[in-house]
Amino acid sequence: MKASELAKILDGALEGDDVEIVACGGLEEARAGDLSFCKDPKHVKLVEATKASAVLLPRDWDRGAPCTIIRVEDPNRACMDAAEIFAPSEPRREPGVHPTAIIDPDAQVGRGVHIGAYTIVEKGAIIGDGAIIEAQVFIGENCRVGERTHIYPQVSFREGTVCGRDCIIHCGVRIGGDGYGFNTVFDPGSPVPRIEKIPQLGIVEIGDGVEIGSNTTIDRARIGRTYIGPMTKIDNLVQIGHNVKIKGFSGLIAQSGIAGSTEIGRGCLIWAQAGVSGHIKIADGVQVGPQAGVPQSLDGSVKYVIGAPAESMKDFGARVLLPKLLAKARAEIKQLKADIAALKSAK
Amino acid sequence: MKASELAKILDGALEGDDVEIVACGGLEEARAGDLSFCKDPKHVKLVEATKASAVLLPRDWDRGAPCTIIRVEDPNRACMDAAEIFAPSEPRREPGVHPTAIIDPDAQVGRGVHIGAYTIVEKGAIIGDGAIIEAQVFIGENCRVGERTHIYPQVSFREGTVCGRDCIIHCGVRIGGDGYGFNTVFDPGSPVPRIEKIPQLGIVEIGDGVEIGSNTTIDRARIGRTYIGPMTKIDNLVQIGHNVKIKGFSGLIAQSGIAGSTEIGRGCLIWAQAGVSGHIKIADGVQVGPQAGVPQSLDGSVKYVIGAPAESMKDFGARVLLPKLLAKARAEIKQLKADIAALKSAK
Amino acid sequence: MKASELAKILDGALEGDDVEIVACGGLEEARAGDLSFCKDPKHVKLVEATKASAVLLPRDWDRGAPCTIIRVEDPNRACMDAAEIFAPSEPRREPGVHPTAIIDPDAQVGRGVHIGAYTIVEKGAIIGDGAIIEAQVFIGENCRVGERTHIYPQVSFREGTVCGRDCIIHCGVRIGGDGYGFNTVFDPGSPVPRIEKIPQLGIVEIGDGVEIGSNTTIDRARIGRTYIGPMTKIDNLVQIGHNVKIKGFSGLIAQSGIAGSTEIGRGCLIWAQAGVSGHIKIADGVQVGPQAGVPQSLDGSVKYVIGAPAESMKDFGARVLLPKLLAKARAEIKQLKADIAALKSAK
Repeated sequence: MKASELAKILDGALEGDDVEIVACGGLEEARAGDLSFCKDPKHVKLVEATKASAVLLPRDWDRGAPCTIIRVEDPNRACMDAAEIFAPSEPRREPGVHPTAIIDPDAQVGRGVHIGAYTIVEKGAIIGDGAIIEAQVFIGENCRVGERTHIYPQVSFREGTVCGRDCIIHCGVRIGGDGYGFNTVFDPGSPVPRIEKIPQLGIVEIGDGVEIGSNTTIDRARIGRTYIGPMTKIDNLVQIGHNVKIKGFSGLIAQSGIAGSTEIGRGCLIWAQAGVSGHIKIADGVQVGPQAGVPQSLDGSVKYVIGAPAESMKDFGARVLLPKLLAKARAEIKQLKADIAALKSAK
Repeated sequence: MKASELAKILDGALEGDDVEIVACGGLEEARAGDLSFCKDPKHVKLVEATKASAVLLPRDWDRGAPCTIIRVEDPNRACMDAAEIFAPSEPRREPGVHPTAIIDPDAQVGRGVHIGAYTIVEKGAIIGDGAIIEAQVFIGENCRVGERTHIYPQVSFREGTVCGRDCIIHCGVRIGGDGYGFNTVFDPGSPVPRIEKIPQLGIVEIGDGVEIGSNTTIDRARIGRTYIGPMTKIDNLVQIGHNVKIKGFSGLIAQSGIAGSTEIGRGCLIWAQAGVSGHIKIADGVQVGPQAGVPQSLDGSVKYVIGAPAESMKDFGARVLLPKLLAKARAEIKQLKADIAALKSAK
Repeated sequence: MKASELAKILDGALEGDDVEIVACGGLEEARAGDLSFCKDPKHVKLVEATKASAVLLPRDWDRGAPCTIIRVEDPNRACMDAAEIFAPSEPRREPGVHPTAIIDPDAQVGRGVHIGAYTIVEKGAIIGDGAIIEAQVFIGENCRVGERTHIYPQVSFREGTVCGRDCIIHCGVRIGGDGYGFNTVFDPGSPVPRIEKIPQLGIVEIGDGVEIGSNTTIDRARIGRTYIGPMTKIDNLVQIGHNVKIKGFSGLIAQSGIAGSTEIGRGCLIWAQAGVSGHIKIADGVQVGPQAGVPQSLDGSVKYVIGAPAESMKDFGARVLLPKLLAKARAEIKQLKADIAALKSAK
């Protein structure tokens, strides 16, 4: 699209060559053909160094730019609008079942459902109206997929999984795998123990409006349900153990893990690579910082914990400072020794 | 199922309404239609607050309950029995090869084997009697799958993988990917190095009775074998590098990682999110705590390590206490200064 | 292969029985039928204990071995050569499209391309000459796959992904999933917040010569591109957030994670399980140690960081020593107290 055309759409004023724009990007990552943006003169150096072909700037910008300028009211907002223009068009997943999809005759498929190529829906499964189940997905026996839920390619739902409405399940997600549970039995006289599998007889139940990132795994309950409450937003490569209960409206960032039977309150945020032990409770609204390790329940008296074992920011900050404080103490001890030696010799 | 019918099956005595029960669940997570259980009067508050429709209680329970009661000898055991009744029925994977499965004519498939839809078994592969290979699985050339091994949907075995008998391989497991190995070559005069791939010429060999959790990855050896010994139980999202040797009867919990060429002894337990460096040995029976980082071999003189770098529980505990101990030391230093000042002025 | 035949190929001299060799392996892991190797007499005990059927040793080795010996110039090199002989033969992926592959008529497939069974290539996708796309892969709309790039089974590329030439993409890799981005909106009077998805309108662009390990996930940009520069080598189960920019020639080891909008310089190495925060820059050539957590930009003045928050090896080493140093300081304080008490009583 020509910069002049873009300027018209974004209600902006063009200055410079009417270049061809094919994509959007930040000032530093932009290249020829890109439109970038800056709203604050403090980033003037980034503007001067950008390789973008055009840049969205505020109407009163007086520092120039090394490329075409489009002046607008709000450069951030204008760039978001432009990004929608250049975004790869969302593939249309029209209602209908691909001829290669294998839908068991005892499964129920709602109205307006899309089911992609090589997808399998086993007997007893119920797919709600308007759901999109893309290609190469496996929906096991007696699963339920709520209305308008969108399942991307190569997801697997083991038998009995219940998924709510308006969910988004990204590629490679695994729902309903067996929880990790074994009994080690030492038989008298045997050189090796027997390791017996504890049957995992429950299911996973996912509330409405949940989003689950690529390759995340959620295990079925030992008995009853592993529960992911409504509007929970889970990132990629997260592990959720059996019988975990996430009340809802919470976020779990990439590579975090919640061990079995733990309860995560409402409105919590578990940051990347954090780990929460099993059989504990995290109170509503608590945040667990990146890489933190939480060995015990958190009652909400501290709203943000960090470190392993997790503690308050204040305590963690003090711990970070330990080497400096200890060095100071050691210097003081040295001085005290000298003082005492002086006192002794003065006697 | 009616509570009265359940009471009969569980050899219990019904008190209260003959409610309909559809599932089992813990006291706190239970909802209408659920059967819960409690064996210890110390949890009486949870019983009083439960939303279950019925609760299994000991015969001598005298604290009542807000719902139907079924009195039994052993509430825990009775609930496990009930859970089996309400569990989603295990899908039946009857012997036979789905017409859409692609089995190379040069592959050997044993008796009583189930192979699901859209699964691929390449040439030279050998599938043992009674194995279950579910839908959308990829079994590469010359792989071996032992008798009665169960492979869930969307697993991939790269060429040459050897998997023992009675294994359970969960959805999304990746066996036999290339190990991570590169040589960086700096050519004189070139502004960038060449990064050359080191061929990964070995295989992965998995012993009998191994279970591997969803989306776990195990890399093929540089040469020889990456070896997962018998009865090893691996959780979800675990990473096992090339040429790792796990002797057997060990557990690796979710999101842990074992770097290349390391040996894990018999009967070890590697807890969640722990990391073990490459080219070291962990002695038989050692446990590596959650999120621990093990940089050096562990000879078994310490049975449980924690922290990064990993140390004994005692040393780790002392480290956790450092801020308190240092604060105390600093207070003592302050007092010593005052004492010395007093001594000086007293002279 | 007979040991004598192998000796001939490797230009070595056979001593002992002409045993049958079927594989290679390290001294400790080797078993009957294996060829092992040792070049250094300091490992003589491992040679004496090996279960290999034959061992490659230097010409001047004078310590014997419990099995057949093949004397060669360079045992390491000879073992690598032997490993290539015993390696599982690389499956041949001949040019051609499997009849079950679904290639949209509006996709372009280059010359000499292999496309495996049950693979899907959507409209607008362009597959470069000589590319190998194995079975059960999903290539979304308008993706580009460069010449000679090899994609293993069960990979998914969401729409618009651009992948360079000579890349290797291992099983279960997920490219182009939505980045993690939500706005939490508190409506007056509502008991729960609304959590609104921020549209993820960009793509992922992967340079030439990139390798990506099993089950790794790379998210599409919020706007613009998530960029993985040329010759970047990514291990298994790595997470790369939206709008990350990796300049190239860098390595990311297993289970590490890079949060959104961060820039990783040229020639960096991010070790296993490390985490790098969002919106920061890691300078060219910096290494982030295993399990390290990097909260702030690193300007390259320190070349290797470790710990969380990440610091220099020297600072980290001092931190590790804290308990010892504090114990010493406390002993000194005790002595000072005694000295002062003595001074007081001496007055």
